[in-house]
Amino acid sequence: MVADTTAAKAGYKVVGTRPIRHDGVDKVTGRALYGADVRPPGLLWGKMLRSPHAHARIVSIDASRAEALPEVAAVVTFADLPRPKDTLAEVGEDQIMSQKYLSNNVIAEDKALYKGHAVAAVAASSPHAAEEALGLIDVCYDVLPPVTNAEDALKPDAPILHEHITAPEGFGDERRTGTNATGYVQHRLGDVEKGFAEADVVIEREFRTRTVHQGYIEPQNATALWGEDGRLTVWCSSQGHFGIRDQVSSILDVPVSRIKVVPMEIGGGFGGKLRVYLEPIAALLSKKSGAPVKMVMTRAEVLEATGPTSGSHVKVKMGATTEGRITAAQAYFALEAGAYPGAPVGGAAACILTPYDIENVLLEGVEALTNKPATAAYRAPGSPIVTFAVESVVDEIRRRLDLDPMEFRILNAAKEGTRRADGTMNPPIGALEVMEAVRDHPSYSAPLSGPNEGRGVAVGFWRNNTGPAAVVANVLPDGRVSLVEGSVDIGGTRTAVAQQFAESLGIPVEDVSPQIGDTDAIGYTSNTGGSGVVFKSGMAALEAASDVKRQMAERAAILWEVPPEEVEYAEGVIRHRRDPELRMAFRELAGQLNDTGGPVVGRGNVSPTGVGGSFAANIVDLRVDPETGKVDVLRFTAIQDAGAAIHPSYVEGQMQGGAAQGAGWALNEEYFMSGDGALLNATLLDYRMPTSLDLPMIDTVIVEVPNPGHPFGVRGVGEANIVPPLAAFANAVDDAVGARLTQLPMSPAAIVAALARAGRT
Amino acid sequence: MVADTTAAKAGYKVVGTRPIRHDGVDKVTGRALYGADVRPPGLLWGKMLRSPHAHARIVSIDASRAEALPEVAAVVTFADLPRPKDTLAEVGEDQIMSQKYLSNNVIAEDKALYKGHAVAAVAASSPHAAEEALGLIDVCYDVLPPVTNAEDALKPDAPILHEHITAPEGFGDERRTGTNATGYVQHRLGDVEKGFAEADVVIEREFRTRTVHQGYIEPQNATALWGEDGRLTVWCSSQGHFGIRDQVSSILDVPVSRIKVVPMEIGGGFGGKLRVYLEPIAALLSKKSGAPVKMVMTRAEVLEATGPTSGSHVKVKMGATTEGRITAAQAYFALEAGAYPGAPVGGAAACILTPYDIENVLLEGVEALTNKPATAAYRAPGSPIVTFAVESVVDEIRRRLDLDPMEFRILNAAKEGTRRADGTMNPPIGALEVMEAVRDHPSYSAPLSGPNEGRGVAVGFWRNNTGPAAVVANVLPDGRVSLVEGSVDIGGTRTAVAQQFAESLGIPVEDVSPQIGDTDAIGYTSNTGGSGVVFKSGMAALEAASDVKRQMAERAAILWEVPPEEVEYAEGVIRHRRDPELRMAFRELAGQLNDTGGPVVGRGNVSPTGVGGSFAANIVDLRVDPETGKVDVLRFTAIQDAGAAIHPSYVEGQMQGGAAQGAGWALNEEYFMSGDGALLNATLLDYRMPTSLDLPMIDTVIVEVPNPGHPFGVRGVGEANIVPPLAAFANAVDDAVGARLTQLPMSPAAIVAALARAGRT
Repeated sequence: MVADTTAAKAGYKVVGTRPIRHDGVDKVTGRALYGADVRPPGLLWGKMLRSPHAHARIVSIDASRAEALPEVAAVVTFADLPRPKDTLAEVGEDQIMSQKYLSNNVIAEDKALYKGHAVAAVAASSPHAAEEALGLIDVCYDVLPPVTNAEDALKPDAPILHEHITAPEGFGDERRTGTNATGYVQHRLGDVEKGFAEADVVIEREFRTRTVHQGYIEPQNATALWGEDGRLTVWCSSQGHFGIRDQVSSILDVPVSRIKVVPMEIGGGFGGKLRVYLEPIAALLSKKSGAPVKMVMTRAEVLEATGPTSGSHVKVKMGATTEGRITAAQAYFALEAGAYPGAPVGGAAACILTPYDIENVLLEGVEALTNKPATAAYRAPGSPIVTFAVESVVDEIRRRLDLDPMEFRILNAAKEGTRRADGTMNPPIGALEVMEAVRDHPSYSAPLSGPNEGRGVAVGFWRNNTGPAAVVANVLPDGRVSLVEGSVDIGGTRTAVAQQFAESLGIPVEDVSPQIGDTDAIGYTSNTGGSGVVFKSGMAALEAASDVKRQMAERAAILWEVPPEEVEYAEGVIRHRRDPELRMAFRELAGQLNDTGGPVVGRGNVSPTGVGGSFAANIVDLRVDPETGKVDVLRFTAIQDAGAAIHPSYVEGQMQGGAAQGAGWALNEEYFMSGDGALLNATLLDYRMPTSLDLPMIDTVIVEVPNPGHPFGVRGVGEANIVPPLAAFANAVDDAVGARLTQLPMSPAAIVAALARAGRT
Repeated sequence: MVADTTAAKAGYKVVGTRPIRHDGVDKVTGRALYGADVRPPGLLWGKMLRSPHAHARIVSIDASRAEALPEVAAVVTFADLPRPKDTLAEVGEDQIMSQKYLSNNVIAEDKALYKGHAVAAVAASSPHAAEEALGLIDVCYDVLPPVTNAEDALKPDAPILHEHITAPEGFGDERRTGTNATGYVQHRLGDVEKGFAEADVVIEREFRTRTVHQGYIEPQNATALWGEDGRLTVWCSSQGHFGIRDQVSSILDVPVSRIKVVPMEIGGGFGGKLRVYLEPIAALLSKKSGAPVKMVMTRAEVLEATGPTSGSHVKVKMGATTEGRITAAQAYFALEAGAYPGAPVGGAAACILTPYDIENVLLEGVEALTNKPATAAYRAPGSPIVTFAVESVVDEIRRRLDLDPMEFRILNAAKEGTRRADGTMNPPIGALEVMEAVRDHPSYSAPLSGPNEGRGVAVGFWRNNTGPAAVVANVLPDGRVSLVEGSVDIGGTRTAVAQQFAESLGIPVEDVSPQIGDTDAIGYTSNTGGSGVVFKSGMAALEAASDVKRQMAERAAILWEVPPEEVEYAEGVIRHRRDPELRMAFRELAGQLNDTGGPVVGRGNVSPTGVGGSFAANIVDLRVDPETGKVDVLRFTAIQDAGAAIHPSYVEGQMQGGAAQGAGWALNEEYFMSGDGALLNATLLDYRMPTSLDLPMIDTVIVEVPNPGHPFGVRGVGEANIVPPLAAFANAVDDAVGARLTQLPMSPAAIVAALARAGRT
């Protein structure tokens, strides 16, 4: 649902409409080419040998028996990699990882830090031969005790993953070396003690969430061909081929200009496909074998060895007056980093309290290393976890105060000019507008009809991100335009970027053919992450459109033999400023470019600031079966501020996707770990993501509070939508059966246990 | 050999040097991807059914038995093509072909016009199944008498290929319908009758040459995938993917913007890979089958069904005074077109007398349809054939006048401002400089040592061509630059274009990574033909370099916080115009672009005029075995005006390649036709091209008379070199054994016969 949109109000012709995505037919008919479809001549198949232990010192690796197999062309171990340097290599969405950690995560150096950690790789003439060869590599391990959750990891007697790490400043009493505590964030605003003293009601609760995975359908893959001239080509599915290029460059110590990464279509990422896993190893196997090498993960490898997001331990304390004014908030959160530093502590701190205007705040966040795969970004990294805690406490306070959930939130809503926990002032934001949209939505006031039914609401925030981006436009002789974009397209951004270009040029978006250029074909473009593509690549497309318009006017001036400054371009027509006889449609002039100076190529290369954050909210109605603990979702409404919805259907798709993933996180998904650190549910049968049968149609409401930093008002919409569901579900469960669950997932067993604790069974 | 070059004189650092080509290692190690290497998932194999008759009406085609084969996915005949229109479709190097002819040549409509003419096509799960299916297609032919040479084709009683064609205006007495005469050119200058009257010696001779093939090693290939959304992707090896796109668009009546042609590496073209053969059919097979379809020709298919160049019948009459001044020249030439109009009559007319300044000229050229494959461009199309005749007559005249071959030519050399046969004035040209280089070369005066040895010289011209071209430059963070070019690279142009870019930017050419963009990825770029790439794409690269330099200066201004106009770019350094402290190397600034506004992308899109023609000459020493007629080449020197040699090694390579092809044309190559119009030597064993064992090392001299139309002075060098060998060899044979051969090839049998006629055996 989107009524009276920014686009409609502004009279846009393309922006705000819902054209069919340019890559749609190819994708539904199976003709789009994904990483696994790459098959250069002479291809070899690579496989990884992975540690069976969650924590073990690698004493020795003997690959001689594998190398003796005639089908085996190459074996790679850590010894084949350049010595990793302890310098900063990767700067993603709060996922900073040193070059050494990045390299060690790709293939273990001296220790295997999680079950599934790669220790060796083989390239052979068939996947089966490669598999067989793995069994012939003899690795001698010295097995160590593992630690697999944040709380245990921060205990003084915990097994230590990285002996040399010193505890971060500000965390704990002493800066001890030999710790699992790494990144630490603290924000202070006002005086929390004073704030709590002013409160009439103070609630303090403790929360725990489990590790969950992004759950993209397409497994990681990489095909590499290392030429004898030292030039390396990598084909893979990623959220940013420039980022992949830069990481491969760093790990293999090869200049970026010697590496070409060709972006294949991607079958889902959600933050989990920003980092290399297979690419550098496939490259080394290619270098050693002299042939192209392809590696594709199994589902178990995806779950055991690629980045999930953090499990957590969170404490939240909030106080409010009887009138409903929040006077203070305090939070502590420990997020699991997995095997290497990189938990989204910064993202969590930036979002945890942003919906509200609170005078007195104390936030402390820490990341804790655990013997699990290194966490990677996952849709609004950090925010869902801490928002689950805050929005649960908010619900408990408003219930204690007997206030309407949304009126309580609206009363405390953050606005332009109010201060955030980190001390910065809010720019124009849509917190209040989103909250009001919840309050005014029919789902909010519809009666619930049966026993054990409940309604929960929650609000969340994601800050979004930007970065450099490039677009090149080639005008074709039939009046259409080929648009080369640098941003990998995951959720329809080819079209949303093309729409902005088409709007500016005054042509139909069907006349634009977008494609993604490889790292040598298009200017540097930052990752498809931080919900930034429609913002930054949209800006690049607008710059490219301006460049095209200027040149088209010049060409018309040549044809008409008038000075170029007398010609203008407006709404798809090139015309003389004064002589009404001199006018030409874009399409007409496009056919005459070769006669007036050659092809017209427009370029846009930008690095825009002014990104706008996005607020999202949910209204969830559900029914709990008190006997089995099963939750049925009855109604699910997602509301989000898009700034301006370029393509409302894809905005709604993002909202529904984030809501569905949040529902899975709330109810079912978890890394189920054995005592010795093994993941016991490493299949999609046992790692239970919601399917279409588990959820009702998710209703959507797009709110549009324009971002002044973008010509059309765009805010990113890919992430904020996963933030509210965790708490909305918990609040709804509490509303339904009077049991406050503080641990995720709220699986049937957990709900039955909670009902028992609450004396409700 | 190149001494004291333009480049050295101008102090260039990159232009005029001989770096290793960027694609070299990939090509010699077999990793470069050619059309035949394309293998998308689910690939089917296509094969063509070809006419066994040289001339036949197609009565019916019944493909039902083939379609019933389970392995067969699709059959295509003419009925599957859109009805062809009689409009102009292709404008290549004098190879104008109507859309109807272009389509009919791809697959026969109502008549098969040469043995090998495609009549149907099959796509099947394997090449073998496709082959088998061809045998199950029943075609009923009404066989007609063929005509296979120009002289016979122009006789009144000749079999007529296209009944509706009317003889061109000016040719013959009446404009008869039902003729094999198509294009006709006439140039008149001065008064030839008066000129011949002033002459002291007049020689008139008649010449004949046979059809020869370009002989590229890589056969034609095409892979097509027609998506259900109507978007068509074609991968193929061609001399111009934009031209292929436009032809496919025309034949299939699909807008160009719905077609993407991906240029694969090309294994030789020489003019023969400008036109589509398989592409539209692979596309239709893909459309019908729903799968990607690949077609690769056999060698016999290449020889029987792709464009060779014309066989000919030429008459030349020239007169000169005893002092050696040419007073008049008259020529008639009939060039075979093959099955469809398109013989290089215009090219022949433009070149035939251009080396000389002659006051009185009458030229007449006509093309004649024959039942052989439609001719295609072949290196300097038309010029070698007619130059063979003219330079043979020139040699005979100077011998009659007892003048030194080069002194006679130098006396008559064309110069800037003298008039050509078509009435235009010569721009600055290098005819005289090339002739003087021949005269001054040691090979010209070295003594011949044995019996039956002889020396021949000849001079020739090619006008060269230009067209639109685009280049996009992406500055990489390590200071290297990725250069996306639109010109297919056949002979090292990636590097020669990159050199011009690097020279302008002041960086090493090794820091530039050139690649060729597909038709959606780069602006329209005209064919790699007419020796135009280093000229036109070089100009585009220079424009892209200017764009990069301007932006780099702006970025430095941002960093230094000074107005952009105070910053300049010179020789790889960005510096403040006055403050010597403010300076940065290109590489240093390249690492800071993302912080100063995003990536730097430079674009160059041009359509330059001012192309310069090129003169070439040969000195050939050979020995004739009078008993067997075998010719041994003793010494072979090629001289050519490059304008400015951007990469002297590749200029030399072009000169040697053209000379070698000319030697094959002179001595051995010919289409050997049976009486019923079949090519009897359709293999490379029987179609005898020279190998490295047949030729000595070919010495080269690069002459540099700068072309004022290009910043570095570039003239195209890919073609003129094939012009002189035919006559140089004939003149050398005459010098060796006193027998003037007027028919090519001068095969052993032809030489023995000529010696017998001359009474020399």
